[in-house]
Amino acid sequence: NSQLKIFSLNSNNPLAQEIAQEMGVELGKSSVKHFSDGEIQISIEESIRGCDVFIVQSTSAPVNEHLMELLIMVDAVKRASARTVNVVMPYYGYARQDRKAKAREPITAKLVANLLETAGATRVIVLDLHAPQIQGFFDILIDHLMAVPLLSDYFKSKGIPAEEIVVVSPDHGGVTRARKMAERLKAPIAIIDKRRPKPNVAEVMNIVGNVDGKVAILIDDIIDTAGTITIGADALRAAGAKEVYACCSHPVLSGPAIERIENSAIKELVVTNTIQLADEKKSPKITELSVAKLMADAISRVYENKSVSTLFD
Amino acid sequence: NSQLKIFSLNSNNPLAQEIAQEMGVELGKSSVKHFSDGEIQISIEESIRGCDVFIVQSTSAPVNEHLMELLIMVDAVKRASARTVNVVMPYYGYARQDRKAKAREPITAKLVANLLETAGATRVIVLDLHAPQIQGFFDILIDHLMAVPLLSDYFKSKGIPAEEIVVVSPDHGGVTRARKMAERLKAPIAIIDKRRPKPNVAEVMNIVGNVDGKVAILIDDIIDTAGTITIGADALRAAGAKEVYACCSHPVLSGPAIERIENSAIKELVVTNTIQLADEKKSPKITELSVAKLMADAISRVYENKSVSTLFD
Ligand SMILES: Nc1ncnc2c1ncn2[C@@H]1O[C@H](COP(=O)(O)O)[C@@H](O)[C@H]1O
Ligand SMILES: Nc1ncnc2c1ncn2[C@@H]1O[C@H](COP(=O)(O)O)[C@@H](O)[C@H]1O
Repeated sequence: NSQLKIFSLNSNNPLAQEIAQEMGVELGKSSVKHFSDGEIQISIEESIRGCDVFIVQSTSAPVNEHLMELLIMVDAVKRASARTVNVVMPYYGYARQDRKAKAREPITAKLVANLLETAGATRVIVLDLHAPQIQGFFDILIDHLMAVPLLSDYFKSKGIPAEEIVVVSPDHGGVTRARKMAERLKAPIAIIDKRRPKPNVAEVMNIVGNVDGKVAILIDDIIDTAGTITIGADALRAAGAKEVYACCSHPVLSGPAIERIENSAIKELVVTNTIQLADEKKSPKITELSVAKLMADAISRVYENKSVSTLFD
Repeated sequence: NSQLKIFSLNSNNPLAQEIAQEMGVELGKSSVKHFSDGEIQISIEESIRGCDVFIVQSTSAPVNEHLMELLIMVDAVKRASARTVNVVMPYYGYARQDRKAKAREPITAKLVANLLETAGATRVIVLDLHAPQIQGFFDILIDHLMAVPLLSDYFKSKGIPAEEIVVVSPDHGGVTRARKMAERLKAPIAIIDKRRPKPNVAEVMNIVGNVDGKVAILIDDIIDTAGTITIGADALRAAGAKEVYACCSHPVLSGPAIERIENSAIKELVVTNTIQLADEKKSPKITELSVAKLMADAISRVYENKSVSTLFD
């Protein structure tokens, strides 16, 4: 077998470190610096000839900087005669631009897939894509991991009786995800059904399903400005939920997110570390779970040419 | 003939405006904004179906932001059924990473060429690439313009007698460029020949050619931190040059550049507007010449399917 090498770029070094530790290896030596004019300067400081190389990088904010770091690193790894160039993207930026919602819009999620292939990636490992269809944007192999088991296990460990729990999707698009968590918690689901009765009239929050007297767990893939989730929490409380938890795979948490969460009806927000939380985004309400073991398992299985699909749920 | 449309992105809107004015057309309507998390949101606000579209964008600092704007715009234009997608890059960022100078380095200039093609560019118009070989990095058509005529005409207009002028290359790599300007000014050339006599000993500046009592004009393609050019100017004065001018196509001017230029022996630095000068980089020593007419001519010729090569010198 050829040798395994894991490299970290700058978006989420703590996660890359943790992954390497899980696997009992050291991170590969490389440097990512900037020239005086801001251009990225990458150099790989050990031989990777013939190796299976895994590059860990989330394309979280600053997304364009992190994406270019990744593309340039892939180019460097390819030109350094690696056997395979595997891109480990715990968070896939631009995933929400996955279709033409209006005329003359780009489909940036597809562009990113093409750019990665062009740079020389031979395989991609991602977690909870905004839409699973994005897998089809790639012509190279892609492994799609899920955080639902991790999030579900955390809530199980709280010991809340299953019959008190209801898992809630904050919108129509997330029902499948809520269903997956509900199965693991042996709980029913509910859906927040936003509807605009007339144009220019405020949206009405209708809750489909019974939440009265229950512990509601809102689940989403990305929490960005936290508008949807905090308004949803209010609606759940108004409908009689006795406690509201929220969870997501990717804590983007931009703009007013932290303030909204802190002032909301949400008791605790559970997130994963696919995106490194800046210090100013840490909050006593936020619990971070690590995907390091999950990612490490996926990397091992890809490296050993075993099926990764058992990690899907 | 199909219709011509010119769009500007954010790196150099004044130049794009000037180009459109030269051509007697209006810039196409589009918007480039950012979502709350920093992802770029582009939309094209008029039909471009069947059109020949020209997108004006220099990949100057912040280079990664400007490059991603460009790639996403190219994707959007392609998907909006344009007939051709022409990228006008007055300044081509990452051009200095055009070869593996050390083991395991990327070749980012080539990566950028591949990314542009992958996004959907059908033709590229550039000006004074750091190395003309970068043209060969593209499989699509590329037109390579030159600022030497513009810079030469400016110096001609000063009325300095030709026999008093010497055109100086600040290093070995730039001799061909200096030769081109010298021909236009009917002047001889000189070369600054840096040499390190022993390792860990300061470089020696040797001037090849006669500069004593002359007006020296230093010419380079890019002036970045301005170290080379200001040290060169000192060496020229020490060798008896009575005045030292400097000029370049691309005023990157990062880090200490402005301070160095202001404190240097350089009497006047002549640059072009391929890169928009931030207000804090304007200096009484710096003269800006516009490439708008040159770019407009090239766009017209490409659009009318005429040869652009007459614009090369
Ligand atoms: N980074 C972003 N931040 C906020 N909205 C986005 C972002 N990227 C794409 N969108 C928009 O989000 C919508 C897709 O979200 P969804 O309907 O949840 O799949 C599209 O209409 C996009 O215009
Ligand atoms: N943005 C940049 N700023 C400074 N140096 C660079 C930059 N990009 C590449 N280089 C270096 O410049 C050298 C190429 O410049 P040159 O020898 O003038 O072609 C290479 O050794 C690069 O490592």
